[in-house]
Amino acid sequence: MSEEKRFQLDARLENDTVRIASWPLCDVLLMNDSQYPWCILVPRVSGLSELFQLSRIQRQQLDLESIYLSKTLMHVFDGDKLNVAALGNVVKQLHIHHLVRFSNDPAWPAPVWGKLPAKAYSDEGLKYCLETLSSLQKPDWAAIALSNA
Amino acid sequence: MSEEKRFQLDARLENDTVRIASWPLCDVLLMNDSQYPWCILVPRVSGLSELFQLSRIQRQQLDLESIYLSKTLMHVFDGDKLNVAALGNVVKQLHIHHLVRFSNDPAWPAPVWGKLPAKAYSDEGLKYCLETLSSLQKPDWAAIALSNA
Repeated sequence: MSEEKRFQLDARLENDTVRIASWPLCDVLLMNDSQYPWCILVPRVSGLSELFQLSRIQRQQLDLESIYLSKTLMHVFDGDKLNVAALGNVVKQLHIHHLVRFSNDPAWPAPVWGKLPAKAYSDEGLKYCLETLSSLQKPDWAAIALSNA
Repeated sequence: MSEEKRFQLDARLENDTVRIASWPLCDVLLMNDSQYPWCILVPRVSGLSELFQLSRIQRQQLDLESIYLSKTLMHVFDGDKLNVAALGNVVKQLHIHHLVRFSNDPAWPAPVWGKLPAKAYSDEGLKYCLETLSSLQKPDWAAIALSNA
């Protein structure tokens, strides 16, 4: 069975997020918490819990995907700070948070994890957020790799 | 003035940490908190606050340094999970936390930031920790780059 077929998204990530896109290495998930623009990258490689378990080739691709996601999020939402983190104390499956923070968001300046209960998006709010992030749907990876050289 | 000369470590990082080593891109700092093995990488590039502001070459070097630090910390301390995070809501200067977590540490499973006041190392505790981490002093970068290929 191929790696892609064997990989299964953790049930808690599945439950707490909406899938935005499937990139060469990672699935891009939107956290269903309207308090912060919050995306998560999950490499579709089964059995991993640490960044250092990725191969160098996989980390190079993760870098490309993480930087593109980071720049897009900060460009679209014009945040004050981006928080990028691989924690995994609760959900072991390797996943990398990308969180746009604002100096007036409800958890600022604390990290968001465990701070406040999630506030799910309304149908309309979710639709708007997904439209705002439409440039994440089909990135031109060849162009991104070149512009990143 | 060269970049190295212009760079100044943030005063709060300076105050809260002990410098372990100076690597090609980053200074390696040990957080003076005996509750967790906790190192911080600070790229010696002035004016940066986000990972995506590093050039690709700098990110490749950061990757090498971060992975080496991560593997060393987990090998030496045999933790249950590594937390790797670039937050920066309080200290803006780009710095990347590398934190060894144990399922019986005082903050588990929560992230450590803002959870408990730091407990400074005793002189002896600090000496022991620095000895334990002596392999961070002068890594063989050529060998590391090759083994990472």
